[in-house]
Amino acid sequence: MPDLDMFFRPKSIAVIGASNKELTIPYRIIANLQAYGFKGRIHPVHPKETAVRDLPVCRSVLDVPGDVDLAHVIIRRDLVPNAIRECARKGVKGVVVNTSGFSETGEEGKRLEDEVRDLGRSLGVRVFGPNCQGMMNTDPEVSLYSNFTFARIRPGHVSILAQGGGVAEVLNSYLSESGIGIRMYASNGNACDVSIPEILAYWDADPGTRVIVLHMESFADPKEFLETVSRIRKPVLGMKSGTSPEGARAAASHTGRLMAEDTLTDVLFDACGVLRFRTAQELCEAAVAFAAQPLPKGRRLGVVTNAGSPAILATDEAIGRGLVQPDPTEATQQALREKLFATSSVHNPVDMMATATPENWGTAVEALFTDGSYDLVMASFITPIFVDCEGVARELVRVHRAHPETPFLVCLMTNPLWENTRRILEEGGLPTYYFPESAARAAAALADMAALKGRPAGTLPDLAVDRAKAADILAAAGEGVLPGAEAAELLRCYGIPVARETWCAKAEEVPAAARAIGYPVVLKAHAAGVTHKTEAGAVAVNLADEASLREAMGTMAARAPKGADVAWQLQEHVSGGVEVAMGTAAAGSLGSTVMFGLGGVFVEVLRDVRFGLAPLTDAAADRLIDGLRFGRLLSAFRGRPAVDRDRLRDVLLRVGRLAADHPAILEMDLNPVMAHADGDRTRVVDVRIRVGGR
Amino acid sequence: MPDLDMFFRPKSIAVIGASNKELTIPYRIIANLQAYGFKGRIHPVHPKETAVRDLPVCRSVLDVPGDVDLAHVIIRRDLVPNAIRECARKGVKGVVVNTSGFSETGEEGKRLEDEVRDLGRSLGVRVFGPNCQGMMNTDPEVSLYSNFTFARIRPGHVSILAQGGGVAEVLNSYLSESGIGIRMYASNGNACDVSIPEILAYWDADPGTRVIVLHMESFADPKEFLETVSRIRKPVLGMKSGTSPEGARAAASHTGRLMAEDTLTDVLFDACGVLRFRTAQELCEAAVAFAAQPLPKGRRLGVVTNAGSPAILATDEAIGRGLVQPDPTEATQQALREKLFATSSVHNPVDMMATATPENWGTAVEALFTDGSYDLVMASFITPIFVDCEGVARELVRVHRAHPETPFLVCLMTNPLWENTRRILEEGGLPTYYFPESAARAAAALADMAALKGRPAGTLPDLAVDRAKAADILAAAGEGVLPGAEAAELLRCYGIPVARETWCAKAEEVPAAARAIGYPVVLKAHAAGVTHKTEAGAVAVNLADEASLREAMGTMAARAPKGADVAWQLQEHVSGGVEVAMGTAAAGSLGSTVMFGLGGVFVEVLRDVRFGLAPLTDAAADRLIDGLRFGRLLSAFRGRPAVDRDRLRDVLLRVGRLAADHPAILEMDLNPVMAHADGDRTRVVDVRIRVGGR
Repeated sequence: MPDLDMFFRPKSIAVIGASNKELTIPYRIIANLQAYGFKGRIHPVHPKETAVRDLPVCRSVLDVPGDVDLAHVIIRRDLVPNAIRECARKGVKGVVVNTSGFSETGEEGKRLEDEVRDLGRSLGVRVFGPNCQGMMNTDPEVSLYSNFTFARIRPGHVSILAQGGGVAEVLNSYLSESGIGIRMYASNGNACDVSIPEILAYWDADPGTRVIVLHMESFADPKEFLETVSRIRKPVLGMKSGTSPEGARAAASHTGRLMAEDTLTDVLFDACGVLRFRTAQELCEAAVAFAAQPLPKGRRLGVVTNAGSPAILATDEAIGRGLVQPDPTEATQQALREKLFATSSVHNPVDMMATATPENWGTAVEALFTDGSYDLVMASFITPIFVDCEGVARELVRVHRAHPETPFLVCLMTNPLWENTRRILEEGGLPTYYFPESAARAAAALADMAALKGRPAGTLPDLAVDRAKAADILAAAGEGVLPGAEAAELLRCYGIPVARETWCAKAEEVPAAARAIGYPVVLKAHAAGVTHKTEAGAVAVNLADEASLREAMGTMAARAPKGADVAWQLQEHVSGGVEVAMGTAAAGSLGSTVMFGLGGVFVEVLRDVRFGLAPLTDAAADRLIDGLRFGRLLSAFRGRPAVDRDRLRDVLLRVGRLAADHPAILEMDLNPVMAHADGDRTRVVDVRIRVGGR
Repeated sequence: MPDLDMFFRPKSIAVIGASNKELTIPYRIIANLQAYGFKGRIHPVHPKETAVRDLPVCRSVLDVPGDVDLAHVIIRRDLVPNAIRECARKGVKGVVVNTSGFSETGEEGKRLEDEVRDLGRSLGVRVFGPNCQGMMNTDPEVSLYSNFTFARIRPGHVSILAQGGGVAEVLNSYLSESGIGIRMYASNGNACDVSIPEILAYWDADPGTRVIVLHMESFADPKEFLETVSRIRKPVLGMKSGTSPEGARAAASHTGRLMAEDTLTDVLFDACGVLRFRTAQELCEAAVAFAAQPLPKGRRLGVVTNAGSPAILATDEAIGRGLVQPDPTEATQQALREKLFATSSVHNPVDMMATATPENWGTAVEALFTDGSYDLVMASFITPIFVDCEGVARELVRVHRAHPETPFLVCLMTNPLWENTRRILEEGGLPTYYFPESAARAAAALADMAALKGRPAGTLPDLAVDRAKAADILAAAGEGVLPGAEAAELLRCYGIPVARETWCAKAEEVPAAARAIGYPVVLKAHAAGVTHKTEAGAVAVNLADEASLREAMGTMAARAPKGADVAWQLQEHVSGGVEVAMGTAAAGSLGSTVMFGLGGVFVEVLRDVRFGLAPLTDAAADRLIDGLRFGRLLSAFRGRPAVDRDRLRDVLLRVGRLAADHPAILEMDLNPVMAHADGDRTRVVDVRIRVGGR
C-alpha cells in the first residue's frame, strides 16, 4: 500500500502563498479547512502578511513551528521549484501544487512541470498536481477539506478520484447533496508525481471506503494503471471522457497528456475489473447503490410495486441492460394470492396496486427475498395519500435488515412532503432513486460488477510454437510491411493456418502450381500500377479446373496495362465459414493489444470488435469471442452449422502469443479469417504484418 | 378541435360517492380542488352524508342546484352505469370514472366498461377513464386540481398526458418540483371514450401549452392516433413503455388493451412527428428545454464553459447524439483571444477557465450567438467561489434575451448555496441542468424535433402498375401462402424485378430451360420430405454451363430419397450487389406497414430494419433507406460501387403500393433482394406472400 497519509491524513498543513483576499485560492483553502473543522494545525505562509483568518503567518515554511506534513503551494509558477526546495529542507512530506500554467499550457510549462517532479523525487517530497484542486477526507479523525471548491460535503463511503476539477465537483456535489456523502476525494490535475493508480491503491486499504468513483481524461502510464488497479479489490466505477474526437481534442487542450483512444480505455478498464460508465449521472447513481448494497450472485431481479406503469419502465430498462425477471415460484405466487388484494398481480413485477398497506409491502418484498428466484430485489414505491407511507418505509427497512446478503434498491416516487418516508429509508440503509429507470440501471451495474469480479482469469495455454524460427524471420526482415510469403510463414511458425498460396513469375508455371494447391483456386494478377485488383478485374475466385483457370488468365492478361510484367498469385479457394478478423497492435509499455471481430466488410461497417491484451488467457479469448454484439453469426444459424469455436479460439490464442513473443511486430491484420464449422478448414485468407526495430 | 372544456375548464363539479373519510379518493379530490383554489363550484354527492369539508352534500346529482359540467364517479363499479344515466338526466357533459375494476381486470370488467362507454355515447355524456386519476389545469382562470394525487403542481407550459397514473405522477412531480411547472395534465387510464388523440388535439389549440409530454402503454385505435396526432403542430415528446417482453406482459396485466409491438410505436410516432424517448428522465429533461426554447435551424452546437472537464462530457454526449461542434470562425476566435484570458481556449468548447468574469461570459456567449456557425448554444457553468456568479447569470440572461431565436441551454453545476444564481437564470427563461450530458441530450432533442417537423412529406409517385391483373391473381388465389410462380407474377404486375425462373417436372426439360434463362443458373431439386435443401445438397448456385448443370443434376438425383419424384427449379444466378430485405404486414385499420432492411442473415442477426406505412411517399422511402444503422453497406465501399439507390427506392415504393392497393396481401417477405450497382440487375431472389380473405 502506498503511503499517502501526508495528503489524506496530515497533522499539519502549510499554505504557501496565503492571502487575505477572500476571493483567492489560498484564502479559500484556509477557510475551508477551518470551516470543516480540520483536526490538525494550519500555517499560512507569506513573506509580508501577519495574519490570515486569525492565524499567525510565517515568513517562510522554514519558519513554521513544529513539523509540517503537507504544504499547499499557490504562488507564481516559476517560484514553485524553490518552494519545493524549501519544503524539502523543512521535512515536508507532501506538496500540493494548486498553481496552474504547467504541462496543460504547452512545452515551456511541461519543462517546468518535469523540473518540479524531478526535484520532488530527488529531495524525497511527493508532489500532488500541479494545476489541481486538492483533496478531502471526511473521516472525523481528520476532517480534511484541503480544496478551494464550494461543495458542501458530508461523510459517506464513496471515494471520488477525478482528474479534472470540474467533473470532480459535479460528482462530489451530487453525492453529498443527495445524502450519500463521500469518504475521500482527490483531484490531482496534471498528476506529475502522485498518480491515479497510487491513490486508488491507497483507498483500497482505507476501511472507510466501500466504492471508488473514478473519472479520467488520460492514462499517464497505462502499465502502472494495469499493474496497480488490477490488484484493487474494492469496486471501481470508471468513466473516461474525450470519447468523441471533439471531446478528445478539448481534453487535450485543457489538461496534460492525452492517450484518448477509447480502445485503450476499454482494454485497461476491462483488464483491471473497472466497470465503465458513459455518463456522469449513471456513474453517480451506481455509486449510490454500491455505497450501501452488497454485490448480487446473479442477474435475476424481482420487482414489487404499488403502481403498474413505473414498474414497467423499470422492467424495460432492466431487461434492456441484461437483467432477467423470472416469475416467483408457484408456491410464492400462491402465498401472495392469499395475502394480497385480489386485484394484485403476483407475477414479476408483483403489482399490489396503490392501496397496498405496510403489511402488504412487507409480505411481498419478504416473499421475493426468500423465494430463491432472485439475486436482487427492487421496490418501486409511489407514495399514495391514503396509505401509511412511513409504515411502508419501516417495513422495507425491516425486511432489508433481515436479508442483508441480497441487494435491495428502492425507487421512491414522491415529493418533499414525504421527507420523513425518505429519511426512514435512508437511515435504514436504503438510499432511493426518483426515476424507475435509474434504479434499474443501478441494479444492472451491481450485477455487471459482480460478473466482472467473479469471472475467471483463465490460464495461458501451452501452445506448440516455433518461436526461434519466427524470431529468425523477423530478424531477417527490414522495417515496414512483411512480404506476403514471409508473413504467411511467420503465422505458420505459430500454428496459425494460412490459405495455401504460390507466386508464379511466369504464366506457364501457373497451371502446375494450381494442381499443387488443388482446385478450386483463387487467381490474382499483380501488375505495376494496378492497386484495386477487384475493380480492375484482376481477381478470379472459385476457379474449378484448368480450363477456367486458363480462361481467367487470358482475360486478365488482356486487361493488364500494355507491356506490364504480370506476377500471378495462386491461392487455395476457401469457401463456407464466417469471415472474422483478428489483429494486434503495439501498445507501448502494455505490449500489444489483440483485436477480434467480424471480418470482411463487417469490420468497417459494423465495427463489432473486441480488444484484449497479448498474450490472451483462454478465458480472455473466450470473452473476446463471446463479447461480440453480433456473435450469433458464429453460431448454428439458418441451417448453417456453427463454426468450430475451439479452433477459432486456438487461432486467436496463437495470434496473441505471436504478438506477445515478438515486440518487433508492430501491427498484424488478419482479415478475413474464414472460421469454418470444420476447424481443420479454418484459414487466414489475407494477412498484413508491419514490423519495426526495437 | 374537440371540445373537452367540460373536463379541463368546468364551472361546476359533482363528486359522486363523496366521503368524509380522509384517506379516500373522493375526499382527496374535493380537498385538492379546494386547496388549489378551483374557480368553479364543488358539489359532493352522497345518499347519506350531509357535509364534506364544509360543503353541503346532495343526495343525488339530480339534486345539485344549477348546471353541472363535470362529475367524478367513485362508487362500486356495478353502480357506475346508473350514475351515468343520472348524469345524463342532469345534463352533465362529462363524467370521470375513477373507479377501477373494468377492462384491466378481465372479461367481465371489459363488458361493464363497454356498457359504460356505449351508455355515455347514446346519452351524450363524454366518459373519461375508467380506472384513472383525472385531470388538472393550472390556468389561473380555472385552477383545476381534479385528481386524487399528492403532487404539488405549479403553472408552466408543459402539458402531460400519461395513461398510467404512476408515470403521470412521476412526470408531473419532476416538472413541478424542478420549477418548470405544467399547464394541463390528464391521466385517463382505460380511455374507453375520451381518447389520447382527442386530448392531444385539444391541447394543440390551448394557448398556454407549448409542448406536450405523452406516455402511452397501448394504442387503443392506431388509425385515430395517426389521423389526429399527425395534424398536431406543437411538439409532442412521446414515450411508450412495455418495450421488453416482460414489460409488455406487465403492461397487459395492469391496464386495458395491448398492442405492444415496438414497431407499431416507431411507425406511428414517426408518421405523426412525435419524438420518441426511451426513459422518463430524458423525456422530462427534454420537456424542460422545449418549454422555454425555440426549435433550432440545424444541429451545430456551440459550447462555452468555465471548466474544461464537464464541457468534455457535454461534447461527448452531443456528438454521440448527432450534433456537430464546429469551431468559431477565425474572426470570432481572434476577437475572443483579444478579450478573454490568455489561457482560454477559443475553439469549441470555448473554455475560459474558472476565473471567467461576468464580462467574459457575456463576451463569449454573445460571440457564439452572432458568429453564424451555431444553431444552438450551451453554457456549461460551474460556480467558483471567487467569481460574481449572479453577475454571470445576469449576463447569460441578457444575451439570451438579445437572441431569442437561437435555443440556449445552461448546465449549472452548483449547490443550493447558489440558489440566487439559479433563480436569476430561471426567471430569465433559462431553466438549468445539473449534469452536462443532460443538457447535451436536451439540445439534441431540440434538433431532432426540428428535423422531424421540417422534413418533407414527399409525394406518392405515379407508378406504372397493372393493378387489375394483380387483383385477378389474388382473386383466384385461396387463403394461405401463394405458390412461388404466382407470387413472382404478382410482383411483376407492379414492376418489381424478380429473378427469372422456371420449374421443370422432368429432368430432360432442364437444359433447355437453363438456356432460356441464360447461364449462370441456380438449380434446386425439390423432393417430398426434403425441407432443408441447402443442407441436403439440393441447391447448386452459379452453374456456368451445361456440363456443370448436368453434373449437379446427377449429384442431386443420386442424393434424393429413393423413388421420390424430383421437381427441378431453375433460377437466374444473381451475383454482386448487396442483400437487402423488403416486406409488408397487414396492420389492421392502418392498412399495411412496409419494412426495409439489410437482408439475408443480416435481417435476423443485425435487425437493422426500418418501418413505414403503405403506400410510401418518395420521401418516406428515402427515410427508410437512409435510416439504416449500417446503411454504409449500400454505399461505395472498399472498391465496391454503390448500389443504384434510385432503383432500390423505386422497388421499395412499388412494394408499398402493392400492399396498399391489395389488402388481401397479409404478409410479403422479399428476402433477399439483391440491390445492384446496375439498377437493371437489381432482383428479388426469394419471395413469400401470404394472402387472406377480407
